Amino acid sequence: MCSYLIKYGACQTLSAKAAAALDKELMSTGAFSIDQLMELAGLSVSQAVFRVHPPSLGRRILIACGPGNNGGDGLVAARHLYHYGYAPTIYYPKQSSNELYQRLSKQLRDLDIPFVDDFIEAEKSSDHIVDAIFGFSFSGEVREPFPAVIRALEETTRPVTSVDAPSSWNIESGPPESGPGSKFMPAVLISLTAPKPLVKHFQGRHFVGGRFVSPTIAKKYDFDVPDYQGLDQVAEIPSGNQKL
Amino acid sequence: MCSYLIKYGACQTLSAKAAAALDKELMSTGAFSIDQLMELAGLSVSQAVFRVHPPSLGRRILIACGPGNNGGDGLVAARHLYHYGYAPTIYYPKQSSNELYQRLSKQLRDLDIPFVDDFIEAEKSSDHIVDAIFGFSFSGEVREPFPAVIRALEETTRPVTSVDAPSSWNIESGPPESGPGSKFMPAVLISLTAPKPLVKHFQGRHFVGGRFVSPTIAKKYDFDVPDYQGLDQVAEIPSGNQKL
Repeated sequence: MCSYLIKYGACQTLSAKAAAALDKELMSTGAFSIDQLMELAGLSVSQAVFRVHPPSLGRRILIACGPGNNGGDGLVAARHLYHYGYAPTIYYPKQSSNELYQRLSKQLRDLDIPFVDDFIEAEKSSDHIVDAIFGFSFSGEVREPFPAVIRALEETTRPVTSVDAPSSWNIESGPPESGPGSKFMPAVLISLTAPKPLVKHFQGRHFVGGRFVSPTIAKKYDFDVPDYQGLDQVAEIPSGNQKL
Repeated sequence: MCSYLIKYGACQTLSAKAAAALDKELMSTGAFSIDQLMELAGLSVSQAVFRVHPPSLGRRILIACGPGNNGGDGLVAARHLYHYGYAPTIYYPKQSSNELYQRLSKQLRDLDIPFVDDFIEAEKSSDHIVDAIFGFSFSGEVREPFPAVIRALEETTRPVTSVDAPSSWNIESGPPESGPGSKFMPAVLISLTAPKPLVKHFQGRHFVGGRFVSPTIAKKYDFDVPDYQGLDQVAEIPSGNQKL
């Protein structure tokens, strides 16, 4: 059991504002590049997926990528998953002109990983889904074309792994009261660096990824580094009041 | 067993020239950044070290870093090793002004990892050594201050893991006929992307790291991708005519 429960009766969390400040600090005084951080984030996502759904349970994995960094984490995860033996398919409807995302996409195309336009259709022939649409910087409304995707994620019978946040959820207060996402509960959540306040509302399997944070940074932002084991880039921690 | 032995009676290898061309291709049409590749290389080094010498066998690990990319791989490995529970010490006498290496060093300093000036002294209080001095671009003479370090690596009773090449070895023809390195035989070698011709002369445990290479690239450069297992970023393969 992680020490989160001991301290707070629930996981110690990082607000959206604190998460943004931490990211900024890692990339300034922390001297990390975004390439490095995204590689490590995507690697940890791929490890959480493997732990819960090893390729023997189904190789066809559909990865929905949003327009920002959360989508970039999904692109990196897709590459690692391919190398673990999965057959990924990418849904990436709002491809950024950002050079980093372009490069991550090219790396996938060089592996002949298909990019598809129709999420609803692709969902039918997948074994498992990764939701890398919105992360900690999401707020407000879900914009087109994502409302239909969020509804499909609500209704799918396939297990869904969300990256950092179930997409459409408010980072502080959790699921929206109505509309797309109000009934969305992914099977798995991987919190990057530290859990966000929305985890109070999450009831599935919960992982934390981010085995690069210095004790100084963790102390400054007042969160606990989980007990990573062996070579793992992820650690499973309790969800809400659940004990492992 | 990997398919190397079947094909060639020894590992299929990549010449220094081909390795340089491959690196260039990965970073141009392959769309990888050097940050990404170095992160993945250092990660695979850290995994090979963990496999052979888990922290329970001794946490004090001395990492000798050269002035180029091999040294950069060592710096990345040091960070991961710290997070696995090791107590790394860095010997990095020719610190480059290259911005990437500066950032990787800063990441280590933020973890309070010591940088030392005296390799010989530091060797005495280490349990294990990583040789990240010279990689596939090495040729010619070992320059100061490294001859004494290479001699210490030859004489140490601590196990040494070499990154991509035992430092001082010629990439094609192996150990030098005389002088520093002529008797150097590390316990472990981790070949990055693919083994170099020098592996014919290597007799320790041999790993390959580089679980990001596309089948197209492997085919073009005519090497086999080893059978990586599970989430591993490294695969152990036979040394010379040894079978696993």
